Amino acid sequence: MTVEFEMPQTKQVVVQKFGGSSLATEELLRKVAKRVAARREQGADLVVCVSAMGDTTDELLNLAHRLSGDYSPSPRETDALISTGELVSASLMGIAIRGLGHDAISLSGRQAGIQTDETFGSARIANIEPARVLREIKRGRIVVIAGFQGLTPADDTTTLGRGASDLTAVAIAASIEADVCEIYTDVDGILTADPRLVPDARVIPQIGYEEMLEMASLGAKMNPRSIEMASVHKVPMLITSSFNPHAAGTKIGNLEDQNSNMEIRKSITSIATERSVARVTLHGIADRPGIAAAIMMPLAEAGISIDVIVQNVSSHGLTDMSFTVGQEYLQRVAEITSQNTEVGYSDIATRDGLAKVSVVGTGMTNSPGYAARMFRALADANVNIEMITTSEIRITCIVDQEHVATAARALHSEFELEAD
Amino acid sequence: MTVEFEMPQTKQVVVQKFGGSSLATEELLRKVAKRVAARREQGADLVVCVSAMGDTTDELLNLAHRLSGDYSPSPRETDALISTGELVSASLMGIAIRGLGHDAISLSGRQAGIQTDETFGSARIANIEPARVLREIKRGRIVVIAGFQGLTPADDTTTLGRGASDLTAVAIAASIEADVCEIYTDVDGILTADPRLVPDARVIPQIGYEEMLEMASLGAKMNPRSIEMASVHKVPMLITSSFNPHAAGTKIGNLEDQNSNMEIRKSITSIATERSVARVTLHGIADRPGIAAAIMMPLAEAGISIDVIVQNVSSHGLTDMSFTVGQEYLQRVAEITSQNTEVGYSDIATRDGLAKVSVVGTGMTNSPGYAARMFRALADANVNIEMITTSEIRITCIVDQEHVATAARALHSEFELEAD
Repeated sequence: MTVEFEMPQTKQVVVQKFGGSSLATEELLRKVAKRVAARREQGADLVVCVSAMGDTTDELLNLAHRLSGDYSPSPRETDALISTGELVSASLMGIAIRGLGHDAISLSGRQAGIQTDETFGSARIANIEPARVLREIKRGRIVVIAGFQGLTPADDTTTLGRGASDLTAVAIAASIEADVCEIYTDVDGILTADPRLVPDARVIPQIGYEEMLEMASLGAKMNPRSIEMASVHKVPMLITSSFNPHAAGTKIGNLEDQNSNMEIRKSITSIATERSVARVTLHGIADRPGIAAAIMMPLAEAGISIDVIVQNVSSHGLTDMSFTVGQEYLQRVAEITSQNTEVGYSDIATRDGLAKVSVVGTGMTNSPGYAARMFRALADANVNIEMITTSEIRITCIVDQEHVATAARALHSEFELEAD
Repeated sequence: MTVEFEMPQTKQVVVQKFGGSSLATEELLRKVAKRVAARREQGADLVVCVSAMGDTTDELLNLAHRLSGDYSPSPRETDALISTGELVSASLMGIAIRGLGHDAISLSGRQAGIQTDETFGSARIANIEPARVLREIKRGRIVVIAGFQGLTPADDTTTLGRGASDLTAVAIAASIEADVCEIYTDVDGILTADPRLVPDARVIPQIGYEEMLEMASLGAKMNPRSIEMASVHKVPMLITSSFNPHAAGTKIGNLEDQNSNMEIRKSITSIATERSVARVTLHGIADRPGIAAAIMMPLAEAGISIDVIVQNVSSHGLTDMSFTVGQEYLQRVAEITSQNTEVGYSDIATRDGLAKVSVVGTGMTNSPGYAARMFRALADANVNIEMITTSEIRITCIVDQEHVATAARALHSEFELEAD
């Protein structure tokens, strides 16, 4: 009598995502294919999500705008158009991997089971039906998925918004319960600061989802929605270099579990910076419920994101409110706000040429001294603070754009981020 | 009491197909959109099938071959890749038509309900599910369909073979019972002869499906499968110019009905020519059942189409067989045939530098004098005939390539095709 054993499944399931700059040319695409094949040869089950090659998406968008005359191109047609960029890179990647002797299959977002709502241009993923992806993995194939796209219930192709191939990768990783979702970029990982401002900046070895979320919305090049999704579904991530195979990268995950019994040695993870910030201040507005909404709603409707908002204490029923926007929106914000008949104010003042500098780290919550250290370090460096805002894991100062490098360097040094 | 009348549906339903050369540039695409819009303004319900822009398909194929190394690119992946060319032109056409103020929607082959078998690279249409196309027409939209592609039962994208956007157009026209399927090309219609050989060549105003089929396989630039499908489903077609709006074009349809009670005035429709033909002759082969199949099977398996086949009367149980192939296949045919151990022969002879010239017309069937007139006209023009083959509506002679223009002109004149 023969007894057959089923070997326990120990193979690692890895989702890898390569962005447009990693696939900008035929030669780069070939390099990525080799890298995928090498990983395969180490034994992992692989799903590879790809963006469109280089500037394909922008070129298609420009063409659409030129052809649509006085109208804006229909969002549905625009999505049908630009989603082809990822189809091209996915099938080419499938062909290149097969050319290296490995079985591979490319799938569109639809074929990979990515179901979205009908918000063309920035659709939300409603559900993932991973049956086909799992079937192809089981067949021993490397599955290459066109990122950035999905399908509506009405059978139309959507795109998920700029930079959302990351989101495809994380969503697929969550749906197939992958061991890790690796995001390959043109940097070695998430840095402690912008290296153009702070020469000492170094790669952060690991970071929690929440800290990463603060940094993603503060200018680090990661799609915040993908971090959110990874956090909700507890998908471990690795951000690393597509060009440098020796980069260790940055692990993103739930650090609480690992660190719960350990002293958190370093509470500040990084210094985030953002240039080209402008401020709008409304003086003498009525301090009544709903006034903030009345100011913000018309801006939201115009698609303008407000960032830092500061409202001073009221005196005599009147108050001042300041908020920041990307510098490019300043004129439009001033126009919209001055035409806003719902809001009375005595004066409107604008200022551009500002920048944002933040210290980010989970350890801050329980250690009140960080804000004081930050303000002191900026003062010692002769950097004047224009506005301040804080969250549980972040302290942000608005400063003059000319001082942003000085500020970042001072803070990087103050919190000893250059040390390994 | 109010009585509501439903107006009888008198709107014409038109399917238009524009090929890659009509869409080669942004400017040409814009022109086609204007032409579609103008037709719409005349009141027709429109479905527009488009090919990929210019040389897109070839460029993608070249890229695939370069990336696949020593392997051939997988047909499935190749189809996933090259089908994007039509998705791009369809969505751009949708955007351009909307830019002219008309409602339009682009559909992929899949969304248009085109279901195929799994023969990647040259799939056959199995079925068309036109529900969505009909729904969008009913909504008052111009429906733009990506030609050349469909979907397998296993949910994979296929392509229908080179030049098969015509086939998409005819199949859609059949499925929605369109009044006419218009094929826009870079010529004014189907000509009585190749104008490079016969300066007097003119556009044929109308022609039957069968004659057109003979001409399509004899070098006129129409996909023969699309003519076959139009013939089976009785789809009236118009072949006309995408550049010259004044071209009347060639109508293709069932002429029998119209002509059944009329004398057929002109029995010869056109002179078809094909250059670059080569001949292979096997001398002294056994005249036994199955010998032709034994010769042809290995060639079919190598994907080589045999054209004219002539077998002489047997003497002493041995016979000679000649057949023609495209000149580019000659060497390969000679190799395959000389390695064919199933076929014994005393000698193999090859000759290239030949051409094919045919007279085509339905009237011939009942009028035996045409072959004689053809041979006489060629003799008078000092053109030697190498081989002869006939069908019900065609007589073909193989002649020396140097004489093809002389032969075509002589026959064009003999059968009075230059007269209107």
